[in-house]
Amino acid sequence: MSEAGINEARFWGWLTHLAELTEPGRPWTRRAFSAEHAQGRRWLWEQMRSLGLDVSIDAAGNLIGRLQGTASCPGTIMIGSHSDTVAGGGRFDGIAGVITGLEIVAALKDSARPLRHSLEIVDFLAEEPNEFGLSCIGSRGMSGALDPDMLARRNAVGVSLREGLVAVGAATGSPAAAVRHDIAAFFELHIEQGPVLEQQAREVGIVTHIVGIRRIAVTFRGQAAHAGTTPLALRQDALVAAARFILDVRNEVDAAHAQLPFVIATIGEIHATPNAPNVVAGEVRLTLDLRSDETAGLETWTQRIHGLAERAGTAARAPLLEYRILSASEPTACAATLTSQLRRAAGALGLTQLDMVSGAGHDAAFIARVAPAAMVFVPSRGGLSHCAEEWTEPAALAKGIATLLGAVRRLDAAGGIPGA
Amino acid sequence: MSEAGINEARFWGWLTHLAELTEPGRPWTRRAFSAEHAQGRRWLWEQMRSLGLDVSIDAAGNLIGRLQGTASCPGTIMIGSHSDTVAGGGRFDGIAGVITGLEIVAALKDSARPLRHSLEIVDFLAEEPNEFGLSCIGSRGMSGALDPDMLARRNAVGVSLREGLVAVGAATGSPAAAVRHDIAAFFELHIEQGPVLEQQAREVGIVTHIVGIRRIAVTFRGQAAHAGTTPLALRQDALVAAARFILDVRNEVDAAHAQLPFVIATIGEIHATPNAPNVVAGEVRLTLDLRSDETAGLETWTQRIHGLAERAGTAARAPLLEYRILSASEPTACAATLTSQLRRAAGALGLTQLDMVSGAGHDAAFIARVAPAAMVFVPSRGGLSHCAEEWTEPAALAKGIATLLGAVRRLDAAGGIPGA
Repeated sequence: MSEAGINEARFWGWLTHLAELTEPGRPWTRRAFSAEHAQGRRWLWEQMRSLGLDVSIDAAGNLIGRLQGTASCPGTIMIGSHSDTVAGGGRFDGIAGVITGLEIVAALKDSARPLRHSLEIVDFLAEEPNEFGLSCIGSRGMSGALDPDMLARRNAVGVSLREGLVAVGAATGSPAAAVRHDIAAFFELHIEQGPVLEQQAREVGIVTHIVGIRRIAVTFRGQAAHAGTTPLALRQDALVAAARFILDVRNEVDAAHAQLPFVIATIGEIHATPNAPNVVAGEVRLTLDLRSDETAGLETWTQRIHGLAERAGTAARAPLLEYRILSASEPTACAATLTSQLRRAAGALGLTQLDMVSGAGHDAAFIARVAPAAMVFVPSRGGLSHCAEEWTEPAALAKGIATLLGAVRRLDAAGGIPGA
Repeated sequence: MSEAGINEARFWGWLTHLAELTEPGRPWTRRAFSAEHAQGRRWLWEQMRSLGLDVSIDAAGNLIGRLQGTASCPGTIMIGSHSDTVAGGGRFDGIAGVITGLEIVAALKDSARPLRHSLEIVDFLAEEPNEFGLSCIGSRGMSGALDPDMLARRNAVGVSLREGLVAVGAATGSPAAAVRHDIAAFFELHIEQGPVLEQQAREVGIVTHIVGIRRIAVTFRGQAAHAGTTPLALRQDALVAAARFILDVRNEVDAAHAQLPFVIATIGEIHATPNAPNVVAGEVRLTLDLRSDETAGLETWTQRIHGLAERAGTAARAPLLEYRILSASEPTACAATLTSQLRRAAGALGLTQLDMVSGAGHDAAFIARVAPAAMVFVPSRGGLSHCAEEWTEPAALAKGIATLLGAVRRLDAAGGIPGA
């Protein structure tokens, strides 16, 4: 990777240092709004200052380091991700993309070939679930998606999100002041959080879409009954209905595997009532998680799975009581102008690559509302994420950073970026 | 029913009075060891005394009223059930069988034809689940199945069962003193707690067997994984394994419906981990409840279902981690000498009847260890039990009581009862 000027020892040292700012006894944990998160950000602030950046926290609580470009006003290239983590995970999830920004600035300075565009490194506030029950707080703020209802949310001790933003040093004034219209390109490097790159032995993933998600509450209503005295033929067993539904969803989505659009469905949450060994289940609630890279796909499958639920309920004589959309987010297409440069950069570095759909949500999905945005994935060992075992090799991470730097160089050299 | 001397208004008044001694605001609740239970027993004591019975509480906490027979020593005929209830149920479950004893004594006195045998009415202590985690405490005690480990069990505030027995007035000395060897016949009338008599339009059920029960812990171990980033083909989804298992058990037992021995299986309890909507289930625990009227049936099906669990785990790549017997009770055959008299008595009354397997456990299953024992079932409206809607019509209950009285008369007249 020496061609690209990426210094593996340097960024790995930074990444390790930041990862180790964790809750004692629960690696790798740096929850948004916690003391550890604040400590991590103070350290990031110092690194940005050491690299000569102008550092600030915007009105949505995002930590930003800015390197002025040589040209007067061709827009800003932004690189970043988040430094907060889930509980017990987060050794790479988030910080890999922030450290990428530091490494690219350092590599640019080493090269003595400054960019025409101004470059910003961003550490978005609170991408992961947090005490305010709202993820992607900073990127929502930067893209105008942080509404007054969200700002009025309160945590368990009664502090509002609006107050929480002030507490993390957000620039005073309305969070609306954080909305940006000058971003020429946004890039986020992230670990894949899945096994596909490893399984297919590819070095970088070029994200073409970030899925939209429907969460749907599914409830079957049977009749609680004595496990010993109620003949099978007379049972209205809600757990049998749920079991049939779980298998039918799995089989139907499996069968559509080779078709477009991309779709994936998961049932990971189940609650049976009364949930006693000697009582036939009277009611079972499930949560369906449905993801696709196309809104039409989400809509088609929401209906198709509704049909499966009705049939499963009828078959078990425990009818479908509820099929209710709990939350909905729409799919995001990454900017083709940026993904094409990422592909070329990876190709020039001789890396194996794969176009991918991101099955997870990311800050990039919000920034795509106000700017061209794209993502690079690097492999996750065993596909594991959000756990202590989360791991990406330094050399694998270097390839992703080099790809991103290559794309930035190409865009900067091309002059005007479409959409800027 | 006037032929048999059963007085519907009388026993219904008693039953209603006892049922209404309930926790305020949660009918029909009279948990063992509670103030309401003690109140109910004081009332029962008074009724027994009013009928001229000698009343006592034995060393296992059973409330017993005894009517001396006219012959010197042909053994005791015992009739009873329990006055404790589950939470929110119990308007008939248990007390119907105790009130049956009162009504039969009253009818015998009305008839002026006393029995040769002594007759006892028993209210067994704590048949339902209770604070000591042990059901059928009184009938275990009377049959010698209350061991020192059980007596040492403590409730949530540290009181031992041994102390609990003293608190409910058990005769001092070891509970072993409660074991009886003089019972010539034990009869228990109970509501069916299922829908079979109602569905088949039969007036009384003659119980031929009480099932044995195996409770089996079944755990599938998959791999928790991100719901968005883990392709279906790479998942090890423990909930998919559980779903397949639940359906396979249902289908296999359904298919054996017409075969002998009687077998029924239920999965009513399920726990998924981490049980989050956006995480593939890493582990799922189920409890299987398996019942049969033959020990060989329990053993065969325990193995057969083990095979189903292994196949379901393998198919979903979430292998069976545990298949462990949590508890085992053996089937009980009711005494043919008693069931034949019950059939004849019902026939003489012109009642429609059905030979049945009791899918629920009962005090009679313990008493059968030390004496000939049999049961009469009366219909439960809608098959509902252990809930506030539990209901049996007074006229339907009268038919069961008359059947039981008829069998008692026949046995008494026959002189020596085999086994006495």
